[in-house]
Amino acid sequence: MKLVRFGAAGAEKPGLIDADGKVRDLSGVVPDIAGDVLGRKGRARLAAIDPASLPLAPEGSRFGACVGRVGNFIAVGLNYADHAAESGMAVPSEPVLFNKAPSCIVGPDDTVLIPRGSEKTDWEVELAVVIGERASYVSEADALDYVAGYCVCNDVSERAYQIERGGQWTKGKGCPTFGPIGPWLVTTDEVDTGDLAMKLSVNGELVQNGSSSTMVFKVPFLIHYISQFMILEPGDVITTGTPPGVGMGMKPPRYLKPGDRMEVSIAGLGVQRQAVAAG
Amino acid sequence: MKLVRFGAAGAEKPGLIDADGKVRDLSGVVPDIAGDVLGRKGRARLAAIDPASLPLAPEGSRFGACVGRVGNFIAVGLNYADHAAESGMAVPSEPVLFNKAPSCIVGPDDTVLIPRGSEKTDWEVELAVVIGERASYVSEADALDYVAGYCVCNDVSERAYQIERGGQWTKGKGCPTFGPIGPWLVTTDEVDTGDLAMKLSVNGELVQNGSSSTMVFKVPFLIHYISQFMILEPGDVITTGTPPGVGMGMKPPRYLKPGDRMEVSIAGLGVQRQAVAAG
Repeated sequence: MKLVRFGAAGAEKPGLIDADGKVRDLSGVVPDIAGDVLGRKGRARLAAIDPASLPLAPEGSRFGACVGRVGNFIAVGLNYADHAAESGMAVPSEPVLFNKAPSCIVGPDDTVLIPRGSEKTDWEVELAVVIGERASYVSEADALDYVAGYCVCNDVSERAYQIERGGQWTKGKGCPTFGPIGPWLVTTDEVDTGDLAMKLSVNGELVQNGSSSTMVFKVPFLIHYISQFMILEPGDVITTGTPPGVGMGMKPPRYLKPGDRMEVSIAGLGVQRQAVAAG
Repeated sequence: MKLVRFGAAGAEKPGLIDADGKVRDLSGVVPDIAGDVLGRKGRARLAAIDPASLPLAPEGSRFGACVGRVGNFIAVGLNYADHAAESGMAVPSEPVLFNKAPSCIVGPDDTVLIPRGSEKTDWEVELAVVIGERASYVSEADALDYVAGYCVCNDVSERAYQIERGGQWTKGKGCPTFGPIGPWLVTTDEVDTGDLAMKLSVNGELVQNGSSSTMVFKVPFLIHYISQFMILEPGDVITTGTPPGVGMGMKPPRYLKPGDRMEVSIAGLGVQRQAVAAG
């Protein structure tokens, strides 16, 4: 299934994409694509519905973030060897974790805002994992049982705030609009994360052109690993790192400016299109 | 007002403490001490109620975390000069921020679990700020308008996970049960955060005995500062750093073990009492 949230920001309704690519309204069935709806039972209930029996969403509806009420937005740093190299950092011996503020989450096509005073706002196409079941101390072998599905995430990052403002990365990762997720939450049964093409273009120029096949730590290991340090809850989102091609790694570095446009895609998970504006 | 949440874990009801120190049940008035209830209007509505008109909570009810549905649990590091020194770190030139997983939040008297494999689980008494209104790019002068109130937080920390496991501190800060908050959320009108006695004892021995007066960055500046990097939402919790006396700073270092008991207090904000057990 491809699950979505559609409608005005803050008032999104749950939906799914039918075989013709049209959005069907699930608001008569579940309150949101969030929490328990993401679990095995919740997904099985949705999968049993004939999409044709659901009302169509209004044509041209905005997509919201594909998951509601995200409790914890966790990110994995330097998880592609080539990206670590372009960032001038070593490939870590175990995953680097940091947090994005859940308040930065927006829809896949919402405008990305450059924070006030920012000069180093950058892009990162990433494969995000959406948790479906509470996970604590889970094994790598069982890890995928706790996953609801996958989506595209643009892990927008302010490099000066991330690296030059003292201590921890979180300052440069959770600014308003820095977390577009979606358009679709694609359930695990439809995705093999082993070799997905990942692309990001700025103003039509392809700047990131990678594959999930070069991830250092793979999804099952990441779920296992993170669950040793914290309880993962349904609706938590883990974004798993970016392949090479970010602005910080260019010579000279290149950052986003108002008027730029990004297109962000992962094979099978859909496309995001974001305008960039001053915050 | 002293706002509380009482009852079984996961099924807490909202309440307040009356003039006799008894818990009154607010569940007929509001669904939870969370979200909009924490805003100016929500607090004014609660303040207008005669506590004597509310039913008493069952005698001996457990206290839950004093805030429900915490969206972002932000922490400030090295915010007391003496604590920075005992940690072998410099006083930062601007606040160090990191995140605790919201899933680590528990009630003030709940058992603190030592994570599996942990050898360096440590304590930190902290003054926590609860956000009442959405805050983005706010000035230091206006900052306290966005605060609902204050509570005690034990920022339980696993030092090896925090410091020795690669990169960022978040791994050692959000383990299950690492965020006892409460017993009370005391509203801003009843608290001056300038000089509050802060104490933590382990097995009856006073190990932290500080004051909020030695905070490096004060509450209004912290709200202003954090709001430059991320949107703060009602129900977000910011824990503001610990005074000296943590186990890591002792010679030799001393860490928690199953069977230990902690008592954690801040003047006017109540007392936490936690048993320690294996996780």
